Amino acid sequence: MNAEIVGVGTELLLGQIANTNAQRISDTLAGIGVDVYYHTVVGDNLTRMAPAISQALSRADAVVITGGLGPTPDDITREGVALALGRRLERSPELVARVTAIFAAMGRDMPEANLQQADLPEGAVPIEPEGTAPGFMLDSKQGIVFALPGVPWEMAAMLHKTVVPELRMRAGDAATISRQVLVLGLGESLTHSKIADLVERQANPTIAYLAGMGQVRIRISAKAATEAAALSLIEPVEAEVRARLGASALPGNHATVAPALAELLRGSGATVGTAESLTGGLIGVELTALPGSSDYFAGALVCYSNDAKHAVARVPSEILDGPGAISEECAAALAEGAREVLGTTLGLSATGVAGPATQEGHPAGTIFVGAATAAATEVRALRGYGDRTNVRGFAATYAMDLGLRLLHAR
Amino acid sequence: MNAEIVGVGTELLLGQIANTNAQRISDTLAGIGVDVYYHTVVGDNLTRMAPAISQALSRADAVVITGGLGPTPDDITREGVALALGRRLERSPELVARVTAIFAAMGRDMPEANLQQADLPEGAVPIEPEGTAPGFMLDSKQGIVFALPGVPWEMAAMLHKTVVPELRMRAGDAATISRQVLVLGLGESLTHSKIADLVERQANPTIAYLAGMGQVRIRISAKAATEAAALSLIEPVEAEVRARLGASALPGNHATVAPALAELLRGSGATVGTAESLTGGLIGVELTALPGSSDYFAGALVCYSNDAKHAVARVPSEILDGPGAISEECAAALAEGAREVLGTTLGLSATGVAGPATQEGHPAGTIFVGAATAAATEVRALRGYGDRTNVRGFAATYAMDLGLRLLHAR
Repeated sequence: MNAEIVGVGTELLLGQIANTNAQRISDTLAGIGVDVYYHTVVGDNLTRMAPAISQALSRADAVVITGGLGPTPDDITREGVALALGRRLERSPELVARVTAIFAAMGRDMPEANLQQADLPEGAVPIEPEGTAPGFMLDSKQGIVFALPGVPWEMAAMLHKTVVPELRMRAGDAATISRQVLVLGLGESLTHSKIADLVERQANPTIAYLAGMGQVRIRISAKAATEAAALSLIEPVEAEVRARLGASALPGNHATVAPALAELLRGSGATVGTAESLTGGLIGVELTALPGSSDYFAGALVCYSNDAKHAVARVPSEILDGPGAISEECAAALAEGAREVLGTTLGLSATGVAGPATQEGHPAGTIFVGAATAAATEVRALRGYGDRTNVRGFAATYAMDLGLRLLHAR
Repeated sequence: MNAEIVGVGTELLLGQIANTNAQRISDTLAGIGVDVYYHTVVGDNLTRMAPAISQALSRADAVVITGGLGPTPDDITREGVALALGRRLERSPELVARVTAIFAAMGRDMPEANLQQADLPEGAVPIEPEGTAPGFMLDSKQGIVFALPGVPWEMAAMLHKTVVPELRMRAGDAATISRQVLVLGLGESLTHSKIADLVERQANPTIAYLAGMGQVRIRISAKAATEAAALSLIEPVEAEVRARLGASALPGNHATVAPALAELLRGSGATVGTAESLTGGLIGVELTALPGSSDYFAGALVCYSNDAKHAVARVPSEILDGPGAISEECAAALAEGAREVLGTTLGLSATGVAGPATQEGHPAGTIFVGAATAAATEVRALRGYGDRTNVRGFAATYAMDLGLRLLHAR
């Protein structure tokens, strides 16, 4: 069973947004053993959209289309699917009633244009709207087509309620399981050189890498008749990979450091607070992106100015006037200050220069991260590369990594 | 002149990362008047990659490929381009020297595998590596091909140093200019109903929308022989759009609220600090994503726990014990606390429930944002939809919007 994802929308081709819908759908389908071989993006243009949908149907069992289901004249995915499959559009009385009811419930007048959202290609089954746009599903000889709205959360809800159960049913009982090994502090080529022979021998499970922001993610995926059988294929390979990589591999099954740290904090009843300069609050944002984060996250003291570092995070004036805000000493004082002010088990910090300009004589990419517990304070000096986003992401990752290792060492 | 973007990498098809490279390239090319009609993503698989590159060349003047230029065995974009164009691969002595020198400079041994990065399809011109992976450019009868690394900052550097100047030269002197009008507080269909006739009449300039996270971005784009001529086509249309939308349209030419607020702060010599619960520091992260943000951003007090709200942001106990942390009163106290503690002109705040669970009797999506100056404090109650990311993004946007309007009203 394989699927192709077609993103519709001129805003994607103009670069106004990234195609995060394709990522979410791909990730979800990988989890149920459905292979994805292509993503395609086309604009709100019928003469390019219909052939793209036809091509997708010619090479995949299922096509998941996102976008172009709204009420404006450039929302023409309904027409595109109808044209690709040689079907007429019909107005669904059921959907007219649904769309009308949504506006009535919001106490707003429904613009006439919204009625086009009740049009469906012949034979299509409507998918209940999550916001205001209905989706649809169309089973044809060429394959099954799902058309979902472009708004990410509406898309995600329909994906889980309709697309996944439908494809699971068709794909049969085969299970795909993936486990991730997160590697910090080794580059991609060094990681590869340690496990190259395992990767070459790969068949089931497969081993894939993803490198970026100073980390390498290794994904080990197996297919089998049951989840238990798939897992038993993965386990010896994962153990061998971890043995080769040693302490560079983080424990657990995580794509990034934040959930790994969150799991450790939750499991040990510990709490965390941060004092951030360089990262501007990014560590806090990553830790609070997870549901239930109030169980372990107390707060973040984002201190961009030196006044704030002193007044809010209690960094001593001697440090700010001496080695300065961009120093190991300041990273240590920030981590300790976060712990004290927020009353947490662990304090994390990051200071440095995001760039592009040099600051206080330090080049862009200068990074100091810190972690403090009641027992110890540790600091690391690092060198980040690339743009502001990369330098800040790199610093956030390594601050959390330092905290994770310090907590583990307790 | 038009271009197609081909993303290479199984990690994209597995949904491990979003194709942000395609967004960045599209946005950049839109700015120089190069149209993009398709994005394609294929995996690290020669039998699918080569036809995808051939198809792209058959329908576009230029093809920009990202990814697959690394040192591991699944990095096969060099082979894919060679196969698509019927050329042999040749090892470039110039690149062998470059790649070797990069490792020598890092004081690391070069794994033998990295030498494959010195292979190029016949006739290709290497593009200087930014990290460790060289790119290349190949001019053929079918069109021009650029192959860039998948690491976003390496890709971006080569895009600006090589791809843009090369395509600008070929595209000739035609200029494309875009201006954005950011609309807050109106839905997409209401925005559309106010300017539908202008959109229908569109030719040059064109008008496009992008809705999401409680905002609608309107992009007005014109092509002409010179930038000045393009701008003079845009100006009357933009003025008409702004007249129709009134106060819902933010002043300036911005894609999001953060740079609009940053511009106003910088222009008026004002400073900002935040006290954030719900948003976990997101307002601070958005405001510090911009270079030079230390000119106006002092810090953020991210107070997840009630203790932190009281101790760090000085929210009175009567509020926390009375109306509670999720209330208009708390949003007001947080905004005032941020101003006082951080000593800034403006204080911003957000509190509420990101979800998925109900909290203190308030449903997910409950949002209160606040803004305070020396003269006034304002609070807004809002309702967010969708998942945690959406609710938090929505809250951050409207907190900054409230601050912008309060500063404007001074």
